[in-house]
Amino acid sequence: MKNEMAAYVVERETGPSGLKLSTLPRPVPQMGEVLIRVRASSLNYRDHLTTSAQYGPGHTMTGRIPVSDGAGEIVEIGAGVTGFKAGDRVTANFFPTWISGPASGEQLKAALGGAFAPGMLAEYIAVPANSLVALAASMSFEEAATLPCAGVTAWYALFDTFKLQPGQTVVVQGTGGVSIYALQLAKMAGAKVIVTSSSDEKLERAKALGADHGVNYVTTPDWDKEVKKLTGGHGADIIVEVGGTGTIEKSLSAAAIGGGIAVIGILSGVQSQISLFQVLAKQVRLHGVYVGAREHLAALTEAMAINKVKPVIDRVFPFKDAVAAFAYQASNKHFGKIVVAHDLAGSQK
Amino acid sequence: MKNEMAAYVVERETGPSGLKLSTLPRPVPQMGEVLIRVRASSLNYRDHLTTSAQYGPGHTMTGRIPVSDGAGEIVEIGAGVTGFKAGDRVTANFFPTWISGPASGEQLKAALGGAFAPGMLAEYIAVPANSLVALAASMSFEEAATLPCAGVTAWYALFDTFKLQPGQTVVVQGTGGVSIYALQLAKMAGAKVIVTSSSDEKLERAKALGADHGVNYVTTPDWDKEVKKLTGGHGADIIVEVGGTGTIEKSLSAAAIGGGIAVIGILSGVQSQISLFQVLAKQVRLHGVYVGAREHLAALTEAMAINKVKPVIDRVFPFKDAVAAFAYQASNKHFGKIVVAHDLAGSQK
Amino acid sequence: MKNEMAAYVVERETGPSGLKLSTLPRPVPQMGEVLIRVRASSLNYRDHLTTSAQYGPGHTMTGRIPVSDGAGEIVEIGAGVTGFKAGDRVTANFFPTWISGPASGEQLKAALGGAFAPGMLAEYIAVPANSLVALAASMSFEEAATLPCAGVTAWYALFDTFKLQPGQTVVVQGTGGVSIYALQLAKMAGAKVIVTSSSDEKLERAKALGADHGVNYVTTPDWDKEVKKLTGGHGADIIVEVGGTGTIEKSLSAAAIGGGIAVIGILSGVQSQISLFQVLAKQVRLHGVYVGAREHLAALTEAMAINKVKPVIDRVFPFKDAVAAFAYQASNKHFGKIVVAHDLAGSQK
Amino acid sequence: MKNEMAAYVVERETGPSGLKLSTLPRPVPQMGEVLIRVRASSLNYRDHLTTSAQYGPGHTMTGRIPVSDGAGEIVEIGAGVTGFKAGDRVTANFFPTWISGPASGEQLKAALGGAFAPGMLAEYIAVPANSLVALAASMSFEEAATLPCAGVTAWYALFDTFKLQPGQTVVVQGTGGVSIYALQLAKMAGAKVIVTSSSDEKLERAKALGADHGVNYVTTPDWDKEVKKLTGGHGADIIVEVGGTGTIEKSLSAAAIGGGIAVIGILSGVQSQISLFQVLAKQVRLHGVYVGAREHLAALTEAMAINKVKPVIDRVFPFKDAVAAFAYQASNKHFGKIVVAHDLAGSQK
Repeated sequence: MKNEMAAYVVERETGPSGLKLSTLPRPVPQMGEVLIRVRASSLNYRDHLTTSAQYGPGHTMTGRIPVSDGAGEIVEIGAGVTGFKAGDRVTANFFPTWISGPASGEQLKAALGGAFAPGMLAEYIAVPANSLVALAASMSFEEAATLPCAGVTAWYALFDTFKLQPGQTVVVQGTGGVSIYALQLAKMAGAKVIVTSSSDEKLERAKALGADHGVNYVTTPDWDKEVKKLTGGHGADIIVEVGGTGTIEKSLSAAAIGGGIAVIGILSGVQSQISLFQVLAKQVRLHGVYVGAREHLAALTEAMAINKVKPVIDRVFPFKDAVAAFAYQASNKHFGKIVVAHDLAGSQK
Repeated sequence: MKNEMAAYVVERETGPSGLKLSTLPRPVPQMGEVLIRVRASSLNYRDHLTTSAQYGPGHTMTGRIPVSDGAGEIVEIGAGVTGFKAGDRVTANFFPTWISGPASGEQLKAALGGAFAPGMLAEYIAVPANSLVALAASMSFEEAATLPCAGVTAWYALFDTFKLQPGQTVVVQGTGGVSIYALQLAKMAGAKVIVTSSSDEKLERAKALGADHGVNYVTTPDWDKEVKKLTGGHGADIIVEVGGTGTIEKSLSAAAIGGGIAVIGILSGVQSQISLFQVLAKQVRLHGVYVGAREHLAALTEAMAINKVKPVIDRVFPFKDAVAAFAYQASNKHFGKIVVAHDLAGSQK
Repeated sequence: MKNEMAAYVVERETGPSGLKLSTLPRPVPQMGEVLIRVRASSLNYRDHLTTSAQYGPGHTMTGRIPVSDGAGEIVEIGAGVTGFKAGDRVTANFFPTWISGPASGEQLKAALGGAFAPGMLAEYIAVPANSLVALAASMSFEEAATLPCAGVTAWYALFDTFKLQPGQTVVVQGTGGVSIYALQLAKMAGAKVIVTSSSDEKLERAKALGADHGVNYVTTPDWDKEVKKLTGGHGADIIVEVGGTGTIEKSLSAAAIGGGIAVIGILSGVQSQISLFQVLAKQVRLHGVYVGAREHLAALTEAMAINKVKPVIDRVFPFKDAVAAFAYQASNKHFGKIVVAHDLAGSQK
Repeated sequence: MKNEMAAYVVERETGPSGLKLSTLPRPVPQMGEVLIRVRASSLNYRDHLTTSAQYGPGHTMTGRIPVSDGAGEIVEIGAGVTGFKAGDRVTANFFPTWISGPASGEQLKAALGGAFAPGMLAEYIAVPANSLVALAASMSFEEAATLPCAGVTAWYALFDTFKLQPGQTVVVQGTGGVSIYALQLAKMAGAKVIVTSSSDEKLERAKALGADHGVNYVTTPDWDKEVKKLTGGHGADIIVEVGGTGTIEKSLSAAAIGGGIAVIGILSGVQSQISLFQVLAKQVRLHGVYVGAREHLAALTEAMAINKVKPVIDRVFPFKDAVAAFAYQASNKHFGKIVVAHDLAGSQK
């Protein structure tokens, strides 16, 4: 193994154009850590925000390796590591130190591919061994690379936060990464799923994945009323809210009495006008869901294996074209996840 | 409508031989009640116990109509009833006054077909309107008649008591009514299911219903070790314990750390030797599950409809042969539920 | 007993000036109901809203008896009632048909003293027997009359919604009825309590009731930062949010990671600008809390008796001065509950 | 600091007589660890079992330092430790690697003072920094030394396992370490507490600590019926079961419908005859509670500080008399905790 590695670094926080393929020292696993040869990584909207100076004040990415999600094989074991060995196929949790139970502020700061921890868009990464989950045998590196952020967020919202039960109704907004996972996981768990989108074609694809109903919010702007109708007046038990401003009022209206709204995204703005009267009168539960702990990644992995559910991958880019992958994500044309495959001749050991 | 009806009455508490087809006054629905024309009823092990003086001291069934489970259509509405009308297809909760939340002792006493409330093995029954759940359109009377005791017990154990999540492992003991429901519901919810039985043929049928693994406890008496093996050493997250004496020790051994054991049956005895050391060291959760509330029946009905899951019916007996149905149940040859269809010429209005 | 009774009726929905002391037929308890001789009633902000046409569109109170909260003794038992007898001292749940478990829309509509059910500002009221809770021996009618709305709301928020544990920090906004109850109940349960108010005098009274800290939000407008400081940077685990617009942003800022905000009031407006970014990044749980079920009233009653905690009553008005009681409430000078005592010569049997 | 330290070692697994005060190398804190100068330790029944070959097959203590519980000050920081510094007053969790969430088998094996991790009966101990909780300012080393096993067990049983609410009834068996903590914590949280004991004098002391009722199970062998009577027929909501064989049947009888039994001890045997019929008919929840996670130790520490509750210490032995402390514990005459103070001239740095 060489002492160097290829990695993308944020040269300027200007989005795709600011990413630069560089040569960096290969990291050395410390006590309790392992070194992973990254075989695939996957993009999230958050990676778009972090690389374009939109992730909030004080979050400086210049000089850092972006991208939180990836999978690979262990090539070296640090001192004191038990339970893993070289050759194991693994993925690492988005928050590498949030293992289980409630999160601390320190744990939430240390997300991979952020200002305080290295990212996956590299040949190698060193991460704490107890952030790892072994891949299911049925899962490829490309597939597993999509689990940590989008998959875990959907899992945490449905099964930890709101304890989804079979027969409940879940509304999934749009067809982004988290939404598609939420659709697949909710169907896996026996729920009724209603998907909203501006595209009839995407709604058809959602139905092919199991969605019970699709509502085009362009042709049916009062999608909340449609949700009520499709549930016999009951409303949605759980709503996966990705939009923020502009959609949350409709979500409040679409929710059942006692219904849960998982606030997982702020696509359309960080401030929102909401009706506290609706929150109160309907006893709505509105929870912020910020990815999840390693225990959720483990549970997700197990559940997908047992139910033979595969992540939906839109397109796989070679490592050398990672910048194009970022640009493609910004175009918002995808349905499912965008993956970067790291096994290119140019980046091999 | 005549003022009389056909009904089976417990003449002597001697099991099938003590049941007598009789003519009784047709009940009149009181305020808050509806009158149901029973179209199908279904037998549970509890009906065997109640009719053969084995349901505990002080539970005298002589002169009473047995059987807790049934479905039919509303033929008359008592004063003050809203939300239901004549012609509605309904089933009633096993405990007609346990609607939601924790149960009271008074509610647990008032089970249908017991010493304190009439049973379903009759042409008509009057029950409180708020104990009712409307049948799903896809559900026949015969199918719906199997929901209240066996279906609700399985539901309550998996989803209320232990909050089953996709990917968890459920062990289902045997292939009786509750066990088959637990198998179907656990698969509906994305779990891995291991079924135990003394019959390879029944295990094959369980697999056809979705079971991931079958363990014959005659040829593999250490089924607990097999469960451990099939879960990579983890053990079962939830065990549906129907046996009682003789099986509970194995269940404790098969359980994962923090695993749940739903004590729903006492087939092999009411006293049991258990290892408190195992309970303690593995932090096992052992819960008594005694059917459930009307809210569980409603949730079960909804979930089965959305997931297009049908109850497994072994055999349907005509009303005139209800005694034979009881005898068949006692033979323990069935796989799934035994149903009595009430629409016979001899028992018509 | 005469067939008539004294009762206040909403003649015009103009607040205190629209209330008229009238003579109405005494209600007759139907099946499942009891007739209560009301001995004391208590005012809530909601009674102010209902009597002044501010309770929302379609909520017409004209011709109806207001006030949800009261206590009295049973004077007559309807058919089929068990568990209660004439002479029993009782209070009734705010939502008389919400007994336990999650609420339905129908149950939430049927609040006492609203457009669809009679109120307590009368000599007599007929209510369903299963909405009743027997008074603790130590509780007077005046004291018990304050439990149903304010006490149950505080209970539901702290113990059902957010499952308060000893040692957690609760922020209570202001010193209204719900807030004082929340203070007393949180201290009863071993929490640390921080009260906010615009009045140093009220803060002193809150401390005399057990509050650990008081923050004057006039002199310390950044009370959120003060809460952070008083909790060593952790923030509040539970915030009882009564203000709505204007305070909820501060509540989001004051909340701990994973903290809960109970939205129980909308004093300052029904629409609110909130930061979804804060909700998301801190994984805040924001729940609407709309009074509660009969099971909460029962639990509250038991807990106050065991812990010898007494409701805080600001002032007791005689029945003939109920209009003055309404006016006094509108003045917002009170600390604790305003009670109306119904045992006046002029209103006796 | 010398490179040696004084420590008690299990020379023979024969109880007190097998303990030997020895000189061992002072441990060196590894990455992520701190070195603690132990200032006080505290004995639990488990220490009696481990040192007398009664802790189960394969648990060999020969040559090891016993005792799980202690408190002290940090004297040295290993690499990579943040959040703690030399001089900090701390205690460590019983299971040093069980931080939060559900436990793993590996975590449950690694208890301090067991076969796989060093104990506190020494001058120094090196433990993982993230197992530590800072002492409350109000807590002495002697007091804090009693928290990890007995205090955390009681906390976990009441607040995590069974989510105690004010007004519920808790039965505490006996007056051992866990039981006294359970009494104090339950009262802190607003519960009603009934204590059982064979000694009227101990019952009086329990009442002085806040117990509402005491039942002498020698003079009142049917203490289950007494519990029913003292709760108006309701039964106990939570029972802290320390006895095992012989008491668990009474606990089942004393439990309310849906009541919880925390199996925390097996004083009178590891096998037990229980009535599954009672478990089933009363929907009892029987949970094994095996101490708890670091998060529980932190919560306990905070709650005791806020509520100014102090551990009950029976007697403090000097370090040189630790063997006598073990013998005193075996005599079962104590009420509250037995502590060993490590600040003796003979064992000083």
